[in-house]
Amino acid sequence: MATPTIDRIVRYGLQGVVAADTRLSRVDGERGELLLAGYRLEDIAPNTTFEEMLYLLWHDVLPTQTQLTEFSEQLASLRQIPPIAYDTLHAAADKNLPIMDALRMASGLVTLSTEDDAQAQALALIASFPTIVAAYWHLLNGDEPIAPDNMLSHAANYLYMLTGNKPDDAHTRALNTYLNTVIDHGFNASTFTARVIISTHSDMVAAIVGAIGALKGPLHGGAPGPALDMVFEIGIPDNAEAYIRAKLDAGERLMGFGHRVYKVRDPRADVLNAEAERFFVSEEQRTFYNLARHVEQTALDLLEEYKPNRRLQTNVEFYTALILHGIGLPSDLFTPTFAIARVGGWTAHALEHLEKGRILRPLANYTGAVGKNWAAIDKR
Amino acid sequence: MATPTIDRIVRYGLQGVVAADTRLSRVDGERGELLLAGYRLEDIAPNTTFEEMLYLLWHDVLPTQTQLTEFSEQLASLRQIPPIAYDTLHAAADKNLPIMDALRMASGLVTLSTEDDAQAQALALIASFPTIVAAYWHLLNGDEPIAPDNMLSHAANYLYMLTGNKPDDAHTRALNTYLNTVIDHGFNASTFTARVIISTHSDMVAAIVGAIGALKGPLHGGAPGPALDMVFEIGIPDNAEAYIRAKLDAGERLMGFGHRVYKVRDPRADVLNAEAERFFVSEEQRTFYNLARHVEQTALDLLEEYKPNRRLQTNVEFYTALILHGIGLPSDLFTPTFAIARVGGWTAHALEHLEKGRILRPLANYTGAVGKNWAAIDKR
Repeated sequence: MATPTIDRIVRYGLQGVVAADTRLSRVDGERGELLLAGYRLEDIAPNTTFEEMLYLLWHDVLPTQTQLTEFSEQLASLRQIPPIAYDTLHAAADKNLPIMDALRMASGLVTLSTEDDAQAQALALIASFPTIVAAYWHLLNGDEPIAPDNMLSHAANYLYMLTGNKPDDAHTRALNTYLNTVIDHGFNASTFTARVIISTHSDMVAAIVGAIGALKGPLHGGAPGPALDMVFEIGIPDNAEAYIRAKLDAGERLMGFGHRVYKVRDPRADVLNAEAERFFVSEEQRTFYNLARHVEQTALDLLEEYKPNRRLQTNVEFYTALILHGIGLPSDLFTPTFAIARVGGWTAHALEHLEKGRILRPLANYTGAVGKNWAAIDKR
Repeated sequence: MATPTIDRIVRYGLQGVVAADTRLSRVDGERGELLLAGYRLEDIAPNTTFEEMLYLLWHDVLPTQTQLTEFSEQLASLRQIPPIAYDTLHAAADKNLPIMDALRMASGLVTLSTEDDAQAQALALIASFPTIVAAYWHLLNGDEPIAPDNMLSHAANYLYMLTGNKPDDAHTRALNTYLNTVIDHGFNASTFTARVIISTHSDMVAAIVGAIGALKGPLHGGAPGPALDMVFEIGIPDNAEAYIRAKLDAGERLMGFGHRVYKVRDPRADVLNAEAERFFVSEEQRTFYNLARHVEQTALDLLEEYKPNRRLQTNVEFYTALILHGIGLPSDLFTPTFAIARVGGWTAHALEHLEKGRILRPLANYTGAVGKNWAAIDKR
């Protein structure tokens, strides 16, 4: 490490290191603000479809109706996956593999059915994710996959392929709001993975397959399920305080609270809460929603009492669990549905880095031995 | 970007940023030295087998004969790939896809045949790479794959599966030296990709599939073929100077020369040259070797004349082309053979990061617009 331009400091986790430019999103953890291609999250996420958000990220401008219709039709036409992808999903289901593994394996085969062009591959990947996840979900449950319906929107078609029923507008709107809310978020580990891979001028499928791998990790995409489990285990509002005190007394972490970047309330939590307020209308739904809000408030109060200086806030995972459960998704589908949203950001970042980025290649701090002397195997 | 601990400087390409610790390799670009787990490259690469090098990287100590026998047998027993991987290779061959795409798709299916354990998956991946590459090579050429022979070493079995003939000791030795020489090299883009993915506590297959994607990119793994093409196009030593002057006059880059890290001679070039000196013995081989050395020397002289302050040196790609061509590999197999070596480093880095590393998540410099006002689609 003798080159004078090199830092002597090891930047573990790359924390605080600014790795590249992006026009796609700005995460302001101190103010609790998220900009998506120049728009405030709360202005755009609840008001647009996922197709509009995708168009915005890719083209840096919201589409006109004509542009949106053309883009949506193009995307819908790419929902079918190659036959070998179904064979792969069958093999994975026989082993009962995690959905994220099946998504990684099957989406990696999109290369078989697309041109060698980054934008064409990106569209095919985005279009195929719901098909793969829904098909695999049925195979895991011993059912036959349901073919995509190209007359439905991206969000509606996903719900249709999962349930066999065409969803009502409220379900489709709630899913669109969720997908838009988590579509992009700076250089999280999966987005960064896509950038590192494409930075060698590799192909889009390779970049996205890598990103799926990163998102699978429990330190990144894996916590929305447990956040909901806590609500179910508490069951009724009166149990919340005792349950949470017991967890905190035992030194356990509360899932759904705290974020590495946000030190104030995660703006995504507010957008998803507003959607939940709108979506949960039946008495049963209101009961569940009120329970969740009570659990959240109790948790925040007790976190302030137990860890007064940590500034722990409700994060996006808590509200992800709330809204996706409300839509009717089982918790095993939470992380795969996150991937269905985030592939929009991954592809936009990969296209941006391919156009403007440099190869991402940091240095290592060598901590091993020096000066070992080689000895033949009979002398060891 | 208001948090006070954040750099204001964008570290494009992460150049000069030290991202983590490693005991696996030390790259000293100013001195032209490469340490592998404490051993100097030139001491260890020509004297050990690939299995010994793997054991060293994984365990930080060279194996005894008993340890090596057990490790080698375990590795050899994992060479078979799942049936669906063959189906995938057939589908890829029908589309005439690049070998690196086929390797990415088929190796990603190793999850189907292994336990969910990082070390078990790593061994299965390393063992399966030669099987996949050789099988796909035959399919691309309209032939049937040749099954692995578990009595042969890792290197010898790869050559056997490619040619159908058991290789002599000189070929096996030359391939072992090549594999050892390029097995690891700091935080290059593919190794770094594997670390980013596993840093979320994802699985080993996901990490390695991502790394394959990065290595495919021409800025990383893609140049050994063109380095050899130049030698062939020159044909006889007397043509070298005019050919290279024409290239440099036209402002073209000479493939096989220059490296981002090494400002003196790449130590790997010396090790591979010594192997070539030993390996090229027939008159035909010596003629080719002498031509290549003459081309190299002419290129170095002319680079000094045309670009006197750039310190451009022969890099590992030039000698990769020389030695792999000597062994009998066509240039389409150079990058996949690089992957067969480098997966040893990838797995070792992933295991190390899984044990000791933090989630790798840098920050972005937002360069997009702020304060855009959302308008409904009929108002755009």
